[in-house]
Amino acid sequence: MNSKLPLPKVVVVGGGTGTFVALKGLKEHPVDLTAIVTMADSGGSNKRIRDEFGLLPTSDIRQCFVALADENGGLGLMRSLFMYRFEKGRGIAGMTFGNLFMAALAEILGSQAEAIRQTRKVLRIKGKVIPVSYTDTNLSARYEDGHVVAEEHLIDEPEHDGTLKITDVFLTPKAKASPEAIDAIKQADLVVLGPGDLYTSLIPNLLVEGIPDALASTKATIVYVLNLMTKYGQTYQYSAADHLRALEGYIDKRINAVLVNTGTIPKRALAVYAKSHEVPVADDITNGKPYRVVRTDLVSDRLVTKSKSDALVRSLIRHDNGKLANALMHMLRSSS
Amino acid sequence: MNSKLPLPKVVVVGGGTGTFVALKGLKEHPVDLTAIVTMADSGGSNKRIRDEFGLLPTSDIRQCFVALADENGGLGLMRSLFMYRFEKGRGIAGMTFGNLFMAALAEILGSQAEAIRQTRKVLRIKGKVIPVSYTDTNLSARYEDGHVVAEEHLIDEPEHDGTLKITDVFLTPKAKASPEAIDAIKQADLVVLGPGDLYTSLIPNLLVEGIPDALASTKATIVYVLNLMTKYGQTYQYSAADHLRALEGYIDKRINAVLVNTGTIPKRALAVYAKSHEVPVADDITNGKPYRVVRTDLVSDRLVTKSKSDALVRSLIRHDNGKLANALMHMLRSSS
Repeated sequence: MNSKLPLPKVVVVGGGTGTFVALKGLKEHPVDLTAIVTMADSGGSNKRIRDEFGLLPTSDIRQCFVALADENGGLGLMRSLFMYRFEKGRGIAGMTFGNLFMAALAEILGSQAEAIRQTRKVLRIKGKVIPVSYTDTNLSARYEDGHVVAEEHLIDEPEHDGTLKITDVFLTPKAKASPEAIDAIKQADLVVLGPGDLYTSLIPNLLVEGIPDALASTKATIVYVLNLMTKYGQTYQYSAADHLRALEGYIDKRINAVLVNTGTIPKRALAVYAKSHEVPVADDITNGKPYRVVRTDLVSDRLVTKSKSDALVRSLIRHDNGKLANALMHMLRSSS
Repeated sequence: MNSKLPLPKVVVVGGGTGTFVALKGLKEHPVDLTAIVTMADSGGSNKRIRDEFGLLPTSDIRQCFVALADENGGLGLMRSLFMYRFEKGRGIAGMTFGNLFMAALAEILGSQAEAIRQTRKVLRIKGKVIPVSYTDTNLSARYEDGHVVAEEHLIDEPEHDGTLKITDVFLTPKAKASPEAIDAIKQADLVVLGPGDLYTSLIPNLLVEGIPDALASTKATIVYVLNLMTKYGQTYQYSAADHLRALEGYIDKRINAVLVNTGTIPKRALAVYAKSHEVPVADDITNGKPYRVVRTDLVSDRLVTKSKSDALVRSLIRHDNGKLANALMHMLRSSS
């Protein structure tokens, strides 16, 4: 075995907490790791970065940097700072330090793209974090009753009846993929879609012009990591097949494998989710599908509670970063 | 010559632009460098750090970090960030990144003192920056007509007739010196007082309980760097002897040497200052004084204009950091 072989290239596509977990697990393995991140967020700190600084939203990028940052080295303090959300200061409370860091750097360097690249250097991160697009765009969702909601955070936390099904999502204006994102997908050995909120974290990446083509032409194995739980207002009562059907609507049949959890989700957590009409995604994937289905225990044993900094967690039940990374590494080895 | 001899210890006492210049010059020399910095600032970004974050003001500390930071190394970007003042964002515009950095770190670490120590590590600064005190205090000035002004920034930029003479300045409440500041002075080989605004940058350090005693007991050579120009509202029409008299009122006769500029100040700059009733400090120091008087060219040839970031400069005429450092190093060698 030649130790000078280039590391296998793994690209994680998403943006939210699920991507955080995938990166945190994969960074412990010998891979060349890249995150491609949605840029259509519109809530909270992101809204202010967009409206007041005239920049693209960076919260998802910030979370990826935190996931990839060295937790033990001398830069642990910078990682803590990146996660920190100000609690004091008129007009400052609620903003995250990481977003302000990247905003200041964008002003100094005259380019947000360059600011994101340099942030990686300042934090000495080995992986790459790439915005899927530099187009200033907004996510909209159309529902089965015909009405349209035009901001990502209102899709994520809808004000209407959460049982309404989404018929499609789209970007306004249309967004063009960043060349770095296209290159990363084309050169990848493994592309990981998800885990993450289907319509607000994962699919927004697939709406960007150039991304479906890159996924169609890459020689990489494309793995979809199925969500553990349904999400009220977004994937209410969705089964595994419903998730796949929605996804394939945006990238045709180009999925090689689906990773499905078989681990037991703690009852105490299920009770909390049930109150929000959220249940484990039912595994109704039948044989004879054009993709491999890998069923294994992927769930975290630890129940995670909301953290003040919110950089880490938004839900009680999540994938275990170690189990998920092991399953993905196994797929990488078995596909090559 | 033994190359393992400890480096001579140089302590610069002050806080403003003058201290910035002294540190920037001295960091190029083989010395163990420490800045002791006033913590009684009350204007702008500092006011918000005090009022809204409940922390001590850090703008002077921030400037010292910028002065000491490596300008060429990979951390040049962190230096630029530390100097950066936000121009956008409601409630954020006007704040400096460096102050927000130290405020976030103080919250994370639960201690502003520790935050200042860790900032030094993050920026990989060789010298030390020490707050003269951790007491939450305010500077007041009493004027010859009896009225008192109770905030540093109102003394610095007075709303009354600027020809009024200050009779004395004091801190409310009384402040206690930080143990690190006392140690640094006691162990120093050379203590540099100034250059800097006499009543708002230099003397506020000497008002802190413990500092005059430390200056009285140290074996260090104490050098006072005389200001180049008078300052309207603070040292209007002050001669060199007036500066020394004011200073000695706070630390008795404990000055070993005075460094006086003999270089020519560019006429174009003089004209700008004259409009604000500010003139070069007249050298009226006579022979037979209890201190050595060193007269040499210390003035910068370059006329400095106000910078947007304001971290560097506030005035057109300033000491040249190279010339000042050379003169101080000469004193250090000739006194040992």
